[in-house]
Amino acid sequence: MSKMLAEIRQQPAALEKTLKSGLRQAEALRRKFSANPPRLVVLAARGTSDNAAQFGRYLIEITTGIPVSLAAPSVSTLYHAPLRLDGALLVGISQSGESTDTNIVLEEGRRNGALTLGITNEASSTLARLADFTLLVRAGKEQSVAATKTYTGQLMSFYLLARALGAPIDTADLERLPEAAAAALKLEPEMARRAERYRFMDHAVIIGRGLNYANAFEWALKLMETCYIVAERFSQADILHGPIAMVEQSFPAFVFAPPGVTWPVMQQLLERLAKIQAETMVVTDRSNREAPAGAVAVPMALAALRRKSGGSLPEDLFTPIPYIIPAQIFAASLAAVKGLDPDRPRGLSKITQTV
Amino acid sequence: MSKMLAEIRQQPAALEKTLKSGLRQAEALRRKFSANPPRLVVLAARGTSDNAAQFGRYLIEITTGIPVSLAAPSVSTLYHAPLRLDGALLVGISQSGESTDTNIVLEEGRRNGALTLGITNEASSTLARLADFTLLVRAGKEQSVAATKTYTGQLMSFYLLARALGAPIDTADLERLPEAAAAALKLEPEMARRAERYRFMDHAVIIGRGLNYANAFEWALKLMETCYIVAERFSQADILHGPIAMVEQSFPAFVFAPPGVTWPVMQQLLERLAKIQAETMVVTDRSNREAPAGAVAVPMALAALRRKSGGSLPEDLFTPIPYIIPAQIFAASLAAVKGLDPDRPRGLSKITQTV
Repeated sequence: MSKMLAEIRQQPAALEKTLKSGLRQAEALRRKFSANPPRLVVLAARGTSDNAAQFGRYLIEITTGIPVSLAAPSVSTLYHAPLRLDGALLVGISQSGESTDTNIVLEEGRRNGALTLGITNEASSTLARLADFTLLVRAGKEQSVAATKTYTGQLMSFYLLARALGAPIDTADLERLPEAAAAALKLEPEMARRAERYRFMDHAVIIGRGLNYANAFEWALKLMETCYIVAERFSQADILHGPIAMVEQSFPAFVFAPPGVTWPVMQQLLERLAKIQAETMVVTDRSNREAPAGAVAVPMALAALRRKSGGSLPEDLFTPIPYIIPAQIFAASLAAVKGLDPDRPRGLSKITQTV
Repeated sequence: MSKMLAEIRQQPAALEKTLKSGLRQAEALRRKFSANPPRLVVLAARGTSDNAAQFGRYLIEITTGIPVSLAAPSVSTLYHAPLRLDGALLVGISQSGESTDTNIVLEEGRRNGALTLGITNEASSTLARLADFTLLVRAGKEQSVAATKTYTGQLMSFYLLARALGAPIDTADLERLPEAAAAALKLEPEMARRAERYRFMDHAVIIGRGLNYANAFEWALKLMETCYIVAERFSQADILHGPIAMVEQSFPAFVFAPPGVTWPVMQQLLERLAKIQAETMVVTDRSNREAPAGAVAVPMALAALRRKSGGSLPEDLFTPIPYIIPAQIFAASLAAVKGLDPDRPRGLSKITQTV
């Protein structure tokens, strides 16, 4: 078995540990921010951590109303432009805590007036040392080059951060997420079976929207780095503004389509893909009675998950962690089907240094 | 000849008109902002206009230090979350001014305290009516579905906006951009000849960095919508965080690599691509003595272009408009080589309505 698959299976335990350890820090931040909330949140990251940041962006804006910007690191690392960040919260996200660019952005931002927070899997990393505050992912050492358990750990950290920023997210609901991840892991035999069919796939589009847009980036990244597939990622709206032209009969499309506010537009897209006769795989959940036949039905009880959190929160709030799990399994399985080692993608190492 | 190619050729005149007409509005905004600069700039757009926004993001942060966020429209259009935008400048960018989502974001943002600005090619559009201020692109009616002259017109509008926000960009330098565009048009025969070789290309990566990152998105979009190529776009740093694994011998890569602060990292990437034996086309300019053999050399005098603007501004400041022109010509030419009509991509119409 690949390390990647082993680490995928560790996610329920990693999520539980991340939540438990992060709660106290998040509560301290919540008290701090309740008197003095940031006017802006800036998220800096690369790779999988940047995909987690993409999720954080939607989550924080939707649940707190605080505007969020995904940092363009080169503005600091190459152009050396000082951003006006007084009153802003600047969050660096890095599995290793040793990303040169993320750390430079954090250092410069701090000098320019930002309060800084690190989200990292390494307690003694440079990032943890640099930042004013740290939320630790407690996923344990990640050995596969393809990140999986640290991605969902970062998503969990973002729920805690949103709560710290005033979101009406109840910790009792967060405590059920490891269970939802465990339920999603039951899809392993099904996803392994499904992967077989894609042995000769060499390109694909992955589509999400809103809270699951980040998952489209993450699924695409897993397919690129472990299966060498040219996998493009789009929001349901963005693909309609041009790229849909390249989608023809048999073109492989992978779609995250949870129930909730994004469902009607995703359903329209699914109809359009069906008309083109694209080869579409839909990830949705078992409660979705309108899902097309053959969809991957994540076995989670959406309503049960949102029992305690604010009633105004969207129905798809807790779907991203369980939804990415079948996608991770699919990528690991497909790599195996293609005879590739997902733990050692060609030309990559665990820590990539860029500026 | 395709309308797309005809409109590509209209760019020097369109840029001149856009600059002339926008200057007065930009000066009025400059006076307004000098007393009371926005604390945050939010840019909302889709498709090609969103690529222009990506450029605007780098330009504004680099030249003014004001943080910029690229809006996630679904936060407003689907999740209906009220963002705290008091003191922010919210900019909607749309060729037609009739994008449902961009207009909803603008309306909601205005209600939530933002000052609003529209950048559009249509003076009597809904966007122009909704926004507190308008910067008009004066490209004339755009008939091809594939946007070209409105993209560079939007880039010009962003130079004017950056100036309005306090950037030390001199209008005398902007006045030389139409000339630089005209010089880039001289590459037409060369790009048409180069396109021939790519008759059977079905996938590619397009790579940029910093001020030319947006151009990577735009070149990829043109290749997707007019040539049906699965064209992925990356920053030089992002491709190294995973996607580089999928790049193998003969993989087509298109790279914007101007002289200036991004050159050293782009050069490293070019060396890596050479080692993989990828099939790389580099867009740089004639003054770049370190460019690899066979690069597309845009005939512009970088130093002459930045004569009047602040000396602290980066060397690649004025490259994006001339650099996208050979890319546009390449896409239009390749569509012709492939026997496709770039003016009417399958499944697309000029105005795409999404929420």
